[in-house]
Amino acid sequence: MNADPLTDFSRLCVHTITTKGWDLEEAAEHYAKAGVSGITVWRQWLEGRDPLKAGESIRAAGLKIVSLCRGGFYPAVEEKSRLDAIQDNKRAIEDAAALGAPLVVLVCGAVPEQSLTESRKQITDGIAATLPLAESLGIKLAIEPLHPMYADDRSAINSLASANDVCDKLNHPLVGIAYDVYHLWWDPDLEEQTQRTVESNRLFAYHVCDWMTPTTDLLNDRGLMGEGCIDLRGIRAMVEKNGFSGMIEVEIFSNRWWEKPTPNFLDSILQAYLQHT
Amino acid sequence: MNADPLTDFSRLCVHTITTKGWDLEEAAEHYAKAGVSGITVWRQWLEGRDPLKAGESIRAAGLKIVSLCRGGFYPAVEEKSRLDAIQDNKRAIEDAAALGAPLVVLVCGAVPEQSLTESRKQITDGIAATLPLAESLGIKLAIEPLHPMYADDRSAINSLASANDVCDKLNHPLVGIAYDVYHLWWDPDLEEQTQRTVESNRLFAYHVCDWMTPTTDLLNDRGLMGEGCIDLRGIRAMVEKNGFSGMIEVEIFSNRWWEKPTPNFLDSILQAYLQHT
Repeated sequence: MNADPLTDFSRLCVHTITTKGWDLEEAAEHYAKAGVSGITVWRQWLEGRDPLKAGESIRAAGLKIVSLCRGGFYPAVEEKSRLDAIQDNKRAIEDAAALGAPLVVLVCGAVPEQSLTESRKQITDGIAATLPLAESLGIKLAIEPLHPMYADDRSAINSLASANDVCDKLNHPLVGIAYDVYHLWWDPDLEEQTQRTVESNRLFAYHVCDWMTPTTDLLNDRGLMGEGCIDLRGIRAMVEKNGFSGMIEVEIFSNRWWEKPTPNFLDSILQAYLQHT
Repeated sequence: MNADPLTDFSRLCVHTITTKGWDLEEAAEHYAKAGVSGITVWRQWLEGRDPLKAGESIRAAGLKIVSLCRGGFYPAVEEKSRLDAIQDNKRAIEDAAALGAPLVVLVCGAVPEQSLTESRKQITDGIAATLPLAESLGIKLAIEPLHPMYADDRSAINSLASANDVCDKLNHPLVGIAYDVYHLWWDPDLEEQTQRTVESNRLFAYHVCDWMTPTTDLLNDRGLMGEGCIDLRGIRAMVEKNGFSGMIEVEIFSNRWWEKPTPNFLDSILQAYLQHT
């Protein structure tokens, strides 16, 4: 089953890292002019800024702030580092509140020196430790399961099932999932786990891009939608079948695209969004 | 739980591609001299040779032939290509029989243009089409689940569960699994699925290497055992707990190691086998 083509940009959100040639003002201005509806702000774009003012200026440009990206990286061999990570996640939650972003995306972390089982436990504990603050500020936390090729040092949560398991354990309405097709498309259990995610009201964010053949770099060779093999409309049908109608966020790390002029990349994103997403 | 250290080379097998600087005679001679017990022959090493004579010369050097690597690549959009793949797999089975290898390892294949569900069906059908020949020659077929980062064009079977599901469908004593730690280490269901594999008498082959942090190439940046983050003794304990005591096969694709003199690489393999595997 395929989803119907998207016919306007009312659900289109772009991540600032996608157009990394632009600072926050440039991104907001260009997105708004192009008709993009939402923006997900990466924390580097807030460095040295007042998040409150940054939020005001983004909203003044007419954009919806979708998420702050990213918290996480809870696991560490040393307790001191784990406590530092919790502090950093609290700052991310405070920054999201000041910015006016309803959600922090979590790249949960992993360390090659310890087992994935231990890392998963530390992730669960780390999120739990920030929940009182998230509650008091009304900020949602979205666990992003990462592709298994990042299990060594980026995330010990490598499937939708695993992310759902952590959500079940924490069992809190503010804890959900950031669903990125790049990380999940290969999973034989995708349909079943997508249903579990949507039915549990925890599909908090939906990220798109594409998988290139060949992929020449583990981090920065993502494709623009339509350039690769991900069944984007099939997966969108899966998430929408049970009622998801949230923003569709374009998150592309690509040395190839980043070499081109940023305005051309944004034009291509708009086209690919309508044609392939 | 960790497995006991290995104290001799009676279970050590090396893949000819690991020491790709050597042709078949050189590999057999060096392996035997070093005390390596087994060899897995990649098909390129048989090109232009009589597999019967190749097998005789390997056995004369004192080595056990463990597997022929590799068949597979069943899926294709065009039926003609799928029939060609079946013919090629039949040749692999005949070559294995002539060589005296009891087993063909299957890298099952995938094509970016079609769904993984369709590819999995074509894989199952493709294996089924070669089973009568495999039966008549007594050759085992081992499905190797590949890491999800190869789901675009190398294999639609990307987890141990998925490989077990195909085995269940085919339900034949000659169809089993080649278990490679590189592809499987990240899986949260590894323990449960390993037990399923061993209990079903289908753990036909066990491959080792390591996962590097960072990994700089999707294909050819595997680590020597001990260089990376895979819990090699923990995983070996899992497979041995239920009685697996077969060969331990070193299969390393590494541009970094291939740049060094091959004899030095083999020395390092022997050391790493005892210290870390």
